[in-house]
Amino acid sequence: MPVTHSPEQTIASDRTVRLLDTTLRDGEQAPGVSLSPDEKVEIARSLERAGVSVIEAGSACTGAGERQAISRVTDLDLDARVTSFCRGMKGDIDLALECDVDGVHIVVPSSDRHIEGKVGTSREDNLERTAELVAYAKDHDLWVEVIGEDGSRADIDYLEELAETSLEAGADRFCFADTVGHTGPEHTHEAVSRLAEIGPVSAHTHDDLGLGVTNALAAVSAGADLVHCTVDGLGERAGNVALEEVAIALSHVYDLETLDLEELYELAQTVSRATGVQLPPNKAVIGENAFTHESGIHTDGTLKDDKMYEPYAPETVGRERRLALGKHTGRAGVKATLEEHGVEADDDEIAAIADRVTELGDRGRRVTDADLLAIAEDVTGEDRDRVVDLLDLTATSGGAVPTASIRLAVDGEERVASGTGSGPVDAAVSAVREALGAMADAELESYHVDAVTGGTDAVVTVEVTMGRNDRSVTVARSEADITRASVTAMVDALDRLLAADQQPLAPADD
Amino acid sequence: MPVTHSPEQTIASDRTVRLLDTTLRDGEQAPGVSLSPDEKVEIARSLERAGVSVIEAGSACTGAGERQAISRVTDLDLDARVTSFCRGMKGDIDLALECDVDGVHIVVPSSDRHIEGKVGTSREDNLERTAELVAYAKDHDLWVEVIGEDGSRADIDYLEELAETSLEAGADRFCFADTVGHTGPEHTHEAVSRLAEIGPVSAHTHDDLGLGVTNALAAVSAGADLVHCTVDGLGERAGNVALEEVAIALSHVYDLETLDLEELYELAQTVSRATGVQLPPNKAVIGENAFTHESGIHTDGTLKDDKMYEPYAPETVGRERRLALGKHTGRAGVKATLEEHGVEADDDEIAAIADRVTELGDRGRRVTDADLLAIAEDVTGEDRDRVVDLLDLTATSGGAVPTASIRLAVDGEERVASGTGSGPVDAAVSAVREALGAMADAELESYHVDAVTGGTDAVVTVEVTMGRNDRSVTVARSEADITRASVTAMVDALDRLLAADQQPLAPADD
Repeated sequence: MPVTHSPEQTIASDRTVRLLDTTLRDGEQAPGVSLSPDEKVEIARSLERAGVSVIEAGSACTGAGERQAISRVTDLDLDARVTSFCRGMKGDIDLALECDVDGVHIVVPSSDRHIEGKVGTSREDNLERTAELVAYAKDHDLWVEVIGEDGSRADIDYLEELAETSLEAGADRFCFADTVGHTGPEHTHEAVSRLAEIGPVSAHTHDDLGLGVTNALAAVSAGADLVHCTVDGLGERAGNVALEEVAIALSHVYDLETLDLEELYELAQTVSRATGVQLPPNKAVIGENAFTHESGIHTDGTLKDDKMYEPYAPETVGRERRLALGKHTGRAGVKATLEEHGVEADDDEIAAIADRVTELGDRGRRVTDADLLAIAEDVTGEDRDRVVDLLDLTATSGGAVPTASIRLAVDGEERVASGTGSGPVDAAVSAVREALGAMADAELESYHVDAVTGGTDAVVTVEVTMGRNDRSVTVARSEADITRASVTAMVDALDRLLAADQQPLAPADD
Repeated sequence: MPVTHSPEQTIASDRTVRLLDTTLRDGEQAPGVSLSPDEKVEIARSLERAGVSVIEAGSACTGAGERQAISRVTDLDLDARVTSFCRGMKGDIDLALECDVDGVHIVVPSSDRHIEGKVGTSREDNLERTAELVAYAKDHDLWVEVIGEDGSRADIDYLEELAETSLEAGADRFCFADTVGHTGPEHTHEAVSRLAEIGPVSAHTHDDLGLGVTNALAAVSAGADLVHCTVDGLGERAGNVALEEVAIALSHVYDLETLDLEELYELAQTVSRATGVQLPPNKAVIGENAFTHESGIHTDGTLKDDKMYEPYAPETVGRERRLALGKHTGRAGVKATLEEHGVEADDDEIAAIADRVTELGDRGRRVTDADLLAIAEDVTGEDRDRVVDLLDLTATSGGAVPTASIRLAVDGEERVASGTGSGPVDAAVSAVREALGAMADAELESYHVDAVTGGTDAVVTVEVTMGRNDRSVTVARSEADITRASVTAMVDALDRLLAADQQPLAPADD
């Protein structure tokens, strides 16, 4: 079935639109975010792989550390143009030149609030000063974009004058900036249309009203051909418009390609690791759940036809589809997951298992593989003895050497071991591995602890995924004692994996 | 200065547009989310306070637990209309009637993919069946909205037929559903314009392309007068359009009021607590950083004029402004924060302190109050002796009774104490309180541990805020040992608070 597009596209697919990424500048200005030079280099390489046209690497005036980081990025000799943010002063341009950037963004006020209240100048003087700064930067062979700060609250007539002055002085382009995320698509369209008559226009949008993407598209439809974005929409306050959303919207709705979309997920993960800002689960393209189906209707539909509940294939953006279990799971989801684990059950059994999964979900519980398998054993009457069972655990922390001891029943035989580690959980995990010896050849594929907010007695949820011989099992445990929750989850996962040796492997995907 | 609006508003401010919240249905279908009846009741009350018109409380066919939850919501006798989702079958309507709902959403396929591939019927039979279901629901005095599932991928001519059939059979309205988040604003505008010629139209948009808000506004501008939303944009995959974003965008850009905006933040927190889904820091209206300023330029501007870097006052949506310290902090931010703590410093000292704050931020560190105060003491040469110092800590966990012992130096005198708790951190905290006795009269205002992803040896970041006598201090510590990180942060915060007794309080805000 063909994708249904609008009969009257307002953004033609033969337009050339490029993306500027400012994760390393505006993104880094997000409260609590700070990137080391190494992290900036890693992100810049990832942005280059995705095919971003301009990388705003930082703000050279911030300090020596920042200049060192920008220089590290310019040293990479990327295809992308590498730039620095500059306030409206020659000294800032000089500092940017020290970092050997390809270009600069000269930020000058454009609304009366910023001209008079912030900079303390007049409209006329501001024009004069802008022309001087542009000429100075061009004399130094820099690519120059003038950003009219707070442009969305500026008098459009004055904004036109400012753009004209900038371009006549030699600037390569002028940027319409919705600096405080204040405006809507109608005003953006009008302002950018008028500016585009004068010369090349960029758009810089923020998401304070949730309109970051709306305004970016309005600007492009009005003639803007360079869009400022950040990965995951990081940035001041509610953040900038998200790079991945602009890229997928232009590609999917308007057939207009700006980036190598397959790189987007890895890029987002790189930025998340470096900034410490977790990717929200419900975020387009990059969120953990963006291609996950839990509800019965959606899982059933997706198993019949991938496209039933997806606008585009997850592989388009470097992802994979995932089925999850929970309160809304139906029989099709249960059957598919049991098959993955090589467990057979007839229709009646599957109906009974699905009911029990719903019941568990109803109680607000996350339902993992291990929960499903335990329910299935109960329903099908296929009891089994545990291969590994946790009998006792003690962990000591706070001092110099976190230490733990453990007592396990392994195939009915008792084993005791101890271990040390960087913290109580890590010490306990080494004790478990010590006790199991060669049987502990499973890999800890992921270890995740949900953020804890509230008191020191809050319940902590730990989710562990372990893998062995092409199988993997996820177990979640919630307890106030993080050590106990972590070790119980890990031992349960190991038990499942070792027990699976006694069962045939699931058939390979076909 | 007046807010600049578009001269040609496409959404007139005298329109009546209402919001339907489906957090309890589509929101709950987000993978891993499950709400208990008590939680549904709490959220429904909060939605009522915000002034939502329709609350879709769940999907009665999901199971007995779900029906109990829906009944609890209908029992509240709210002003909002309370509804249930129904698949296109009479049995589902009967189950909804059992819960005593005011209305139902009858979901029928509208695209050929869903008509043929999912339901296995034909366009003609689908029309007939829809008419029967609507008539059945109207016979039982229900308010009825027919949702044409996957409407954005449907033939618009057929969508018109389906809407006509529904309304002729007695339905109160028809909903244009971008079920899989597939389309853009042009197509949405065209489809909704045509449907609005036939009768009342709702819009149901998803965010897979980041276009949830864009399409919701396009639908409203085309004549839709009821918009389906979820709090924080929870929902299947990338989620639904966010309630708070639709409400603030309509209010701020189009002067069109739909909700009591001041209730939005509390509502979002209620939903976050109940679902366990953290609010992303960079999310419009509800994100932790939505009204936080860290960079020097922004902080300085905001201290001169609140509106300099904010589109609307945080109080509009029940929030407060916050200044944060970090790598981009300038002198104005440092000065303002020191004043809050009653610390005086001259201009040269402030410049030196700001440099050191930038340096610390450059190393990727979160800069807290305690860090700033330590730097200020160093720069101003005002050394002080610590009131409380941690000498030794041991915590035992994993077993039945987590236990800790602690050795502190308090005003130079050594004190030893022990405590038990629900986990190692909780036990250590009671030991600290025991050791301090009456001096421990400080309140733990917040305790936050960042989510841990990676291995069991990952570094954990703990942030503690403690308050005493109208002062509060935040300390962050990052270590692999969660017990040690938590206790060190807490003892440092207590030390700061007790030391502050020897200083005058900051003057009250004027």
